[in-house]
Amino acid sequence: MSSPILVPAAQLQTFVSALFVNAGMQPSAADTVAQALVWAELRGIDTHGLSRVSFYLNFMHKGIIKTQPTFKVLQDTVAVQVLEADASAGAVAMQQACAQAMDKARAVGLGLVMVRDTTHTGALGYFTQQMARQGMVGVAFAASLPLMAYHGASAAGVSTAPLSIAVPAPHGEPMILDMASGAVSMGQLKQAKIFNSPLAPGLALDAQGQPTTDPQQATIPMPMSGPKGSGLALMFEMMASLVMMNPIIADYLSDKPGGRRHRQNAWVLALDVARFCPLDQFIQELERTVASIKQLPTADPEGALLMPGERGQACYAQRVHAGIPMPMNLIKELSELANARGMTVPW
Amino acid sequence: MSSPILVPAAQLQTFVSALFVNAGMQPSAADTVAQALVWAELRGIDTHGLSRVSFYLNFMHKGIIKTQPTFKVLQDTVAVQVLEADASAGAVAMQQACAQAMDKARAVGLGLVMVRDTTHTGALGYFTQQMARQGMVGVAFAASLPLMAYHGASAAGVSTAPLSIAVPAPHGEPMILDMASGAVSMGQLKQAKIFNSPLAPGLALDAQGQPTTDPQQATIPMPMSGPKGSGLALMFEMMASLVMMNPIIADYLSDKPGGRRHRQNAWVLALDVARFCPLDQFIQELERTVASIKQLPTADPEGALLMPGERGQACYAQRVHAGIPMPMNLIKELSELANARGMTVPW
Repeated sequence: MSSPILVPAAQLQTFVSALFVNAGMQPSAADTVAQALVWAELRGIDTHGLSRVSFYLNFMHKGIIKTQPTFKVLQDTVAVQVLEADASAGAVAMQQACAQAMDKARAVGLGLVMVRDTTHTGALGYFTQQMARQGMVGVAFAASLPLMAYHGASAAGVSTAPLSIAVPAPHGEPMILDMASGAVSMGQLKQAKIFNSPLAPGLALDAQGQPTTDPQQATIPMPMSGPKGSGLALMFEMMASLVMMNPIIADYLSDKPGGRRHRQNAWVLALDVARFCPLDQFIQELERTVASIKQLPTADPEGALLMPGERGQACYAQRVHAGIPMPMNLIKELSELANARGMTVPW
Repeated sequence: MSSPILVPAAQLQTFVSALFVNAGMQPSAADTVAQALVWAELRGIDTHGLSRVSFYLNFMHKGIIKTQPTFKVLQDTVAVQVLEADASAGAVAMQQACAQAMDKARAVGLGLVMVRDTTHTGALGYFTQQMARQGMVGVAFAASLPLMAYHGASAAGVSTAPLSIAVPAPHGEPMILDMASGAVSMGQLKQAKIFNSPLAPGLALDAQGQPTTDPQQATIPMPMSGPKGSGLALMFEMMASLVMMNPIIADYLSDKPGGRRHRQNAWVLALDVARFCPLDQFIQELERTVASIKQLPTADPEGALLMPGERGQACYAQRVHAGIPMPMNLIKELSELANARGMTVPW
């Protein structure tokens, strides 16, 4: 493969936003989605970055993502809101949910927004880190289509449910845990296929439900730590999808008409730290905790002990200056999308 | 080993409660702790059952668990309470936290009680299932002493932080996820030692921090799925311990005087399902989701697909009728405790 081209983040964002406006989105909403995707690229989460642009545009074209959704507040208390997202682009609904959750947290200490019937929420760390920058503990998880093996099954039964938790940390750079409930992500399976790199045992099943290490055959991720990963994913379905009367797993697995339509449900929770602990004290104690762990002996003498999100933050710091490395296949894909629309490209 | 004696749960509970009263607890508080331990035995969670009695009595004797704690409400909003537990027996503080969290959830949809400076919270499923029986989504997690390896370290740096989520399910029997963030639990390491059964690779380190499969050498659990398990445990420390200004990890690892004192901090969260979805509909949809997963093909032709807590519930149903199997070493240990206090034993 030829080496990737470096493109400044701001130019990519303007370009991607214009593509979404061209597809029918309002400029501010298009900016929100573009920002979330570019953030993921900056953090090195390529699987949730610009590779999603064509997928989103395709969903918009088919009406699976509505470009002009009608948000409705279905329930609202001082502490909880249910936001009907009407198949909105995920980032737009999640962004609004964060703002509402924080408003409630500022008022009563804690705020939860349950987001109903949204679409691909993307890298959840983008939302939790924004809340943490505002002095919150930010928590988000999503329920999605069952593409991961249920523990003990030779078929997919639950989603690779993502969970993110972020807390305020020094220099305004939150500590962000961004994980999923699979032993491996769908994106990692895709990468393994591209590079034809064998998988470790216990990570994936083939399309027939047999365990495999062959990257060309691996299709279904296995759950993290067996019953823990699939149990957590199942509980997210109960807490988000069932509580909001928008079941995903049962409709999908029972082949109900429309049951395989792409959709997600999510929780966005904010806790206002300063209500319970002075924020500077929280950050000092976090630094002390990190320092106490960093001084532990490492298993690999050359290795370092990384905090949640530390690798992503280093990547961000590098890419925000140097630009985002765009592999040729992505350049080609996005160029074609732009050409078909008579738009200019930023490379 | 000789076969265990079966003892009725009610008799064990009366006996254990009397031991705690003898140690200085109020009868109602002693009952609460005894109920939580007997529940764990009934569910087959032996590591959090009656094997803890001598450990609790020893802690009471030393004042590490206060038999007459003074609870204080440090913060209270319509949605959140901070409960200072004053080194109470964990179950007593957690029980009160559940009641308060549910009261808030009934009022505003969601309630969080953060429990500060409690002691061993025990099997968290005992608390979340009680909330689920009252129509709540119940969530609980605890931060504790750093006895588990941090990912990449050859030493302990975070706790095997437990997390439980329970939801209402048919026949008044909640679905309960009860997990910890370790690849293996401290209790499982203890069991492996007793039975001298070799461990799978990747589960534990020896006291020198080297990976081992030797059950006699295994001392430090490794985290579930590497950075996910230790990251989640670290975030629980931030969310519970640091937010409530009662740091555990930093004090422990820096050898601060008193820093190794046994203590825990916890979150107890309740969401009132009926506020968002009719409870009978929620339960029907849960049944439909379970049925859709249960019909998936199993990896092992003889195997079954189990829902979170299903094994524990079956064990409960059996033991509540047949009695709790008490191994001879536990009979001996509890008999000695009773004899020393001039108390009669229930076997």
